[in-house]
Amino acid sequence: MNVLVVYAHPSPNSFNAALKDAAVETLRQAGHTVEISDLYAMNFKAAADGADFPAPVDPANLNYAAEQAAAHDAGTTADDLKAEQEKLARADVVFFQFPLWWYSAPAILKGWLERVLSMGYAYGAGRMFDKGGLGGTKAMLSFTTHGLESSFADDGWHGPITDVLTPLHQGLRFVGFDILPPFVAYNVIRSSDEERRAMMGDLKKRLNALPETPVIPYPALAAYDHQGVMR
Amino acid sequence: MNVLVVYAHPSPNSFNAALKDAAVETLRQAGHTVEISDLYAMNFKAAADGADFPAPVDPANLNYAAEQAAAHDAGTTADDLKAEQEKLARADVVFFQFPLWWYSAPAILKGWLERVLSMGYAYGAGRMFDKGGLGGTKAMLSFTTHGLESSFADDGWHGPITDVLTPLHQGLRFVGFDILPPFVAYNVIRSSDEERRAMMGDLKKRLNALPETPVIPYPALAAYDHQGVMR
Repeated sequence: MNVLVVYAHPSPNSFNAALKDAAVETLRQAGHTVEISDLYAMNFKAAADGADFPAPVDPANLNYAAEQAAAHDAGTTADDLKAEQEKLARADVVFFQFPLWWYSAPAILKGWLERVLSMGYAYGAGRMFDKGGLGGTKAMLSFTTHGLESSFADDGWHGPITDVLTPLHQGLRFVGFDILPPFVAYNVIRSSDEERRAMMGDLKKRLNALPETPVIPYPALAAYDHQGVMR
Repeated sequence: MNVLVVYAHPSPNSFNAALKDAAVETLRQAGHTVEISDLYAMNFKAAADGADFPAPVDPANLNYAAEQAAAHDAGTTADDLKAEQEKLARADVVFFQFPLWWYSAPAILKGWLERVLSMGYAYGAGRMFDKGGLGGTKAMLSFTTHGLESSFADDGWHGPITDVLTPLHQGLRFVGFDILPPFVAYNVIRSSDEERRAMMGDLKKRLNALPETPVIPYPALAAYDHQGVMR
């Protein structure tokens, strides 16, 4: 398999970096090909804005998604985004590694989703959910939390981790990804070296089982009517 | 009341801009004082990274939250963030206006949350949820969607809008904000001028009723034990 690792942490000495390195090593040892997008190291542009379209169709009223589709059709997608889309074209699995900030991905990774997985390329003209442009590609979120696992349970103050992940998973589903169960390293700030080694071991086990891990089941697009309501 | 409008859309001719302008006008006409943070116009830095700390405590291993707290204690918080924190100190209500992208706020606004509502300033040392640093301040999300309202219902393909908003609302709650019910302008791309005027009218009504609008009730921090689990 070809795996694209999309990684977002500002420090190369962080536990997130160690998890990313462990993932890359484990995947390569298992015979997979790995590419890496290290968003902070790449100084990846986070904000989706008019600078992404040097020759916009409608300069007076920037409709970001419409400009994405026009740029895709004209072959004028910005070079940094084309490079990411080419990596995605080669990928069977996209593995995201990041710290959970504000119950979501860091802004730099949120910007990657907005800018790279563009209208025209990843969705549009009825292509969405299981008919989306990334169909046939799997996505897996791997992230660290500051909070305890108990605080992300049903009766935890942060609420269930599955609820926290809903928007990220929905976004990935929308463009066609099949969603693998996430890997969560809880309570990293207070963990011992031994606990961190155990978490890295758990991630390695997850990745070694990747080819046979079932994706999360969701309803197909065909289950809904044209108003987006389940039939 | 003092209202801080935090606005994130790249085009000054967008419907988001029109909603923001209508909000500012309505609030001023009602006698409130309004300040505006127009994140795209300010070229607000979206990514939380080491550049925010010219003299980091631990340059070898950037722990972003720990550096935030240290900078706050030392009075060395970056100028662009201090300016936002001073606006927040004056605000009774923070009104966010943005397009829903990827089931969340645009990356530039996500970055504002990460960078401005910092550890030390907004939370930390047990200050969180109703004991958070922004206690006594209300927050209201106002946003546009591409999708139909029916597609954000319980049986819609996007899932219930309340589920979509969970991470954003939880994040705002975490630092102490009281959460006002959101305002949603659905299906903007396909709406007529008349429908847009109606949506602007609905927003104006919501804002005129702001002082007496009840906030969304949530459990208090005291309802949970030290593991973050409800007692």
